Amino acid sequence: MTTTTYLGKRRKIIDGLEKVRGRARYAGDLTLAAMLHARPVLSPYPHARVRGIDTAAALAAPGVVAVLTGADLNGGRVAYSRPNMILAGEEVVFAGQPVALVLAETDAQATDGAALVEIDYEELPAVEDAGQALADEVLVWPGGVPKAETSLASLHGGEAGAEAAHTPTNIDEARTFERGDVDAALRSAHAVVEGTYVNAPVHQSYLEPHAVVAEPGRRPGQVTVYTSTQGQYTVRNEVAGALGLREGDVRVEPMTVGGGFGAKYGITDALVTAAALHMDRPVRMVLTRTEDMLTTMPAPGTRITVKLGADADGTIVGLDVHAVIENGVFRFGHAGIIATIIGGMYRCKDVRVRTQELLLNRAASGAYRAPGMPQALFALESAVDDLAQALGTDPLTLRVKNAVQAGDATGTGRPWPDIGLHACLERVREHPLWQERGRVPNEGVGLAIGGWPGAFSPTGAVCRVDTDGTVRLHVGSVDISGVHSSMVLIAAETLGVDPDTVEIVQGSTDSGPYAPGSGGSQITISLSGAVLDASTQVREQLIDLAARHFEAHRDDIELEGGSARVAGVPDKTITIGKLAALGQRTAGGPGPVVAEGRAALKAGAPGFTAQLVHVRVDPDTGHVALLGAATIQDVGYALNPMLVEGQMQGGMAQGLGIGLYEGQRFEHGALGNPNFMEYAFPTATDIPPIDAVIVEQPSEHGPFGARIVGEPPITAGAAAVANAIRDAVGVRVTELPVTAERVWTLLRDRATAAD
Amino acid sequence: MTTTTYLGKRRKIIDGLEKVRGRARYAGDLTLAAMLHARPVLSPYPHARVRGIDTAAALAAPGVVAVLTGADLNGGRVAYSRPNMILAGEEVVFAGQPVALVLAETDAQATDGAALVEIDYEELPAVEDAGQALADEVLVWPGGVPKAETSLASLHGGEAGAEAAHTPTNIDEARTFERGDVDAALRSAHAVVEGTYVNAPVHQSYLEPHAVVAEPGRRPGQVTVYTSTQGQYTVRNEVAGALGLREGDVRVEPMTVGGGFGAKYGITDALVTAAALHMDRPVRMVLTRTEDMLTTMPAPGTRITVKLGADADGTIVGLDVHAVIENGVFRFGHAGIIATIIGGMYRCKDVRVRTQELLLNRAASGAYRAPGMPQALFALESAVDDLAQALGTDPLTLRVKNAVQAGDATGTGRPWPDIGLHACLERVREHPLWQERGRVPNEGVGLAIGGWPGAFSPTGAVCRVDTDGTVRLHVGSVDISGVHSSMVLIAAETLGVDPDTVEIVQGSTDSGPYAPGSGGSQITISLSGAVLDASTQVREQLIDLAARHFEAHRDDIELEGGSARVAGVPDKTITIGKLAALGQRTAGGPGPVVAEGRAALKAGAPGFTAQLVHVRVDPDTGHVALLGAATIQDVGYALNPMLVEGQMQGGMAQGLGIGLYEGQRFEHGALGNPNFMEYAFPTATDIPPIDAVIVEQPSEHGPFGARIVGEPPITAGAAAVANAIRDAVGVRVTELPVTAERVWTLLRDRATAAD
Repeated sequence: MTTTTYLGKRRKIIDGLEKVRGRARYAGDLTLAAMLHARPVLSPYPHARVRGIDTAAALAAPGVVAVLTGADLNGGRVAYSRPNMILAGEEVVFAGQPVALVLAETDAQATDGAALVEIDYEELPAVEDAGQALADEVLVWPGGVPKAETSLASLHGGEAGAEAAHTPTNIDEARTFERGDVDAALRSAHAVVEGTYVNAPVHQSYLEPHAVVAEPGRRPGQVTVYTSTQGQYTVRNEVAGALGLREGDVRVEPMTVGGGFGAKYGITDALVTAAALHMDRPVRMVLTRTEDMLTTMPAPGTRITVKLGADADGTIVGLDVHAVIENGVFRFGHAGIIATIIGGMYRCKDVRVRTQELLLNRAASGAYRAPGMPQALFALESAVDDLAQALGTDPLTLRVKNAVQAGDATGTGRPWPDIGLHACLERVREHPLWQERGRVPNEGVGLAIGGWPGAFSPTGAVCRVDTDGTVRLHVGSVDISGVHSSMVLIAAETLGVDPDTVEIVQGSTDSGPYAPGSGGSQITISLSGAVLDASTQVREQLIDLAARHFEAHRDDIELEGGSARVAGVPDKTITIGKLAALGQRTAGGPGPVVAEGRAALKAGAPGFTAQLVHVRVDPDTGHVALLGAATIQDVGYALNPMLVEGQMQGGMAQGLGIGLYEGQRFEHGALGNPNFMEYAFPTATDIPPIDAVIVEQPSEHGPFGARIVGEPPITAGAAAVANAIRDAVGVRVTELPVTAERVWTLLRDRATAAD
Repeated sequence: MTTTTYLGKRRKIIDGLEKVRGRARYAGDLTLAAMLHARPVLSPYPHARVRGIDTAAALAAPGVVAVLTGADLNGGRVAYSRPNMILAGEEVVFAGQPVALVLAETDAQATDGAALVEIDYEELPAVEDAGQALADEVLVWPGGVPKAETSLASLHGGEAGAEAAHTPTNIDEARTFERGDVDAALRSAHAVVEGTYVNAPVHQSYLEPHAVVAEPGRRPGQVTVYTSTQGQYTVRNEVAGALGLREGDVRVEPMTVGGGFGAKYGITDALVTAAALHMDRPVRMVLTRTEDMLTTMPAPGTRITVKLGADADGTIVGLDVHAVIENGVFRFGHAGIIATIIGGMYRCKDVRVRTQELLLNRAASGAYRAPGMPQALFALESAVDDLAQALGTDPLTLRVKNAVQAGDATGTGRPWPDIGLHACLERVREHPLWQERGRVPNEGVGLAIGGWPGAFSPTGAVCRVDTDGTVRLHVGSVDISGVHSSMVLIAAETLGVDPDTVEIVQGSTDSGPYAPGSGGSQITISLSGAVLDASTQVREQLIDLAARHFEAHRDDIELEGGSARVAGVPDKTITIGKLAALGQRTAGGPGPVVAEGRAALKAGAPGFTAQLVHVRVDPDTGHVALLGAATIQDVGYALNPMLVEGQMQGGMAQGLGIGLYEGQRFEHGALGNPNFMEYAFPTATDIPPIDAVIVEQPSEHGPFGARIVGEPPITAGAAAVANAIRDAVGVRVTELPVTAERVWTLLRDRATAAD
């Protein structure tokens, strides 16, 4: 893009007005004829046998139509993931697991009914924490963890049979990613630092809890699912898989999403759909905040040990990592991505990353914006700051010297493509927060870097011009964080129309062209190409029609301001709406103005960030006040800088929350703070102004040079907080969230040691 | 198509199961949150001044939320057609016109409320019939009939101003279509017959009354209309035009249609939408049968005089027609199509067709399957039979001698393209009903021919393959009479998949590719090309993916049974679902399997028919019993013979209904039989088995040689009934419907004359 009219310019998000007017349509707003309201009954125990369920009192309550249990809905299927769990069978395996579902004519009646369901539990020994998990005395899955292929495996024997012969363990998977000889490297290093860093599980804490309406379809086995999701195709496949339906028979209509952050891929959809099909009536379930926090999929707790060594000249020579990940009752593969990043932020030839993914009797963990990254970088970036101190070097200098560039290895050994990490670090050097640090006692500025490799997927899109000049985009993606606002700009730029005349339709699975879920920072870079392709074809069609209409040469047709005109002939102008009408009515003509575009990137466009946090620590109480923050990010090319900044600031706010506030607390294996009164969460008054600094080092592969945007800003904030505290008062926090109590304890311990 | 697997084979309609299970979703089934129910209050007078509307009692009734009048909703706009009428202003101009709208929480409350609205009318002189209309003593529109351009005209003067200077008259439009010198031709003819034929207005009598739900949209001025319609784009434009909205802000979701026959293009949509926007709540209105018959748009009554002459050798030499059409309160152009057909069924160089379209204080007339044709052909084909008798010729022989062929002129002078009328007449000759006629006293067999030129429009369609192998078609057309079932076969044939794996999605106006309304017999011939184009592109994409996957040459890939395979290599086979998955995940690949197709026919594919009716007339009572019927139709190529036969039989049943049963009756200008107790309507027991004989004379332009199907079968049945009665008992009926009383009167008059 040399000159642009709309792309790269600040422009408000397209759905702002409907949201502030309360007109956005969320799944919980949907009321269908004859719809039942569902309320789940959740297990209070992390592990128990269900001896009996007495539904009589609930069934006698006003408005209650049914009380369903696993016997009604599970169909004998074994769940191997949280999304395909329906209701508990003979045992519950985590506190928060749905055991029964009460269906009533109103939501209040369902809630009253749920309180009357009496479940007779026999408590069983549970794996409540990582220590118990590693001890393997009590097993979460004595018969082996259920896997997607479990039933298949038991049919075919062979490899799967061999695997089943393994001794059951709570260590679901242990992996080692290794290059060179890290032990030797660290033995010969000039300076070595070591630390163990602990992250509490944190919850995505979207504003809108999980909400689903399922409606039986026109033909037996067909169903429509209206849901708050980031990926309608993912939900379709999860629901079909869980219930044994044909994928094509599950129609998923993605509603407006009130926050997802990785968690909205169909956790309760199979349950609600099973109930709707069982009752042959529409069913709606909107979780309460407490239910949502108990039964959904938070980021796992982690314990990460880092040993990091450097030569006397500050060259990092060895990195040894051991990451323990508390996955809850089901598998979740954080290991690969943690290894990719933690072993791939700094150039280093001797690296070992060992991971252990643990099973516990806890809610299954899941994806949360840049899964594993805030945890991994809290460990790594704390160690890097400590190493700088051990070397007597400036933290920025050490990072600039060692940070990866294009061609350096990721933690799994592949080379990074062109990346802009160094460009971000250069901007740190000149940033006021960095320039002015160290001037006030008990204040400090912390630096940390982060990033995300970024996913990408093939996509399709359809573009159409209406007779009133409206340009319509039909896509299979979900609009979160304003991604569709950027698609509108691409079409507007291509067709020379005002973006306000471009409408984008978030397609359901039955008609929307394919797009992957809006996660992994992939939608903008993946979908842009399809939208560009479709709108470029539409541009050609409009030029053809105008050339025919004016009997002019194609090359003389210009598109601008929603019209086509013949260059140099002022009165030869026609609106694109009229051209569309010509297309719609011209016999033997080219046909209506519509085109489908496709795109499949060859490679991704990783995004990196450097973040600064400015804190003041109260030495008497340990209270940490956030005074300022900056997030510097290479976005390649900002399609809409206003929305890019919003992503950067929102992501960093979450990183700061993880650093200072958030953490799930367990009591006897059950979540102790399943609500926003007890689960601390930063509010607008807790977060300082965040300076979003956009760096644009164009990507080779991303559209218009754009890179991924969504994940990087969450990755480094927690680490930067820890480094800022170190800078302010000299103590190293190793456990998140950094409560005042923890800082106070560290300060007291240091004073005690000094005594 | 040399050999086909699915096309041209009998196959059940795709939505049969959901319909018989009661699962098809009609607009009246839709319940939205906070939805209000609407009941209109209709004028009992054909013309009156509205002196006042007392809403107090209605507003006090339980559940009534509002009583709206023209002052609330009309916004000062002048209606120029029934679809853009909202509520009456100071005057009502037909009995059945909505004057007020009661909105309540339930439908029953709205009905009760409507009964309590007190409207003070001052009756005004009305134009109640054609005689009064032609007298021009009372004028329907003393200031000139409102037209679409009325407001524009008053702004610009010029031509429109000149038109406004015309003396107001109830003769909205008088036209003459003429070639040669018909007066001279008839003067010198060997035989001339003359008759005047009268048709009562008839109603389309779809099973599902008009039903609309309108829901205010996410942004101000936006609205979604869920409606029973044949054309979502037509409704969108009508509603936007009537309410001054942007077309793009009106989203129309076409629901399942319970019969349309030309009448479902948005008659009540603007009213319901205006109410929803006014209340800022969803509003549903489902008309009762009586309301529907009073306020919608029936086929007009007609009075057609035919003078027809032939030479001694049976060559038709002159045709003079005068058609008077009772259009009701608004314009409706039947003249052109009546002239096209009535002057274009027989080769004749001297033809004159004069038409007068009248305004009356009656519900505006509208389209009903082959608008004007049953009326025109009742006149023409009765005259042709009389002419055969006058010449002493066999009715079939006379028709074969004179019926038009390719190159002969239509009534408006253009040449017919290749048509199959003679092929149909040849099949009459051999048909058992024709062969065995004349054997039983008081029984007779009547022959009549009919046809329809057929519309056609450019269209688009999107085809997609899902990972489970489902093939999806996304179209902008409405499925009536099984048209989508044929689209499924085209995609299945093209892609080598079972039609049961093809799903077709009836798109809303915001995402469905453009298609015209499902009327004028145009959808199958217009849309087939776009579906073929899209699915052929998808076929190419699948072949590319398979060639890549198997590292084989494209030419060696075969698609069959939902899989691609390498010819001659039995184990190299992959389902198209897996190919779609490859497309959805292959970096740098071709992208998801999806394609948009477009089509714009150069010319249409007219369809002709010859129909036979076998009756027995009771000479004592005049009762006519239908003993048998045959409909012989050139459909070019029957994409699905089962559904083509269904169209042929259903259309002929309507023609028989028009001939023998149906007719609106007016009392003091108000419809006297606005319900199925009083408006006679043939039931299944009244209609004899109809032998559907498919003739396939391929069209040059239609897809696979197919021609239009929907309209021709309704056109000739009424005329054939009249001719059968003539054949049975020798009297000529000249007024429809042919009640027993009318036949008895003719028989009595003849006996009296013979005395």
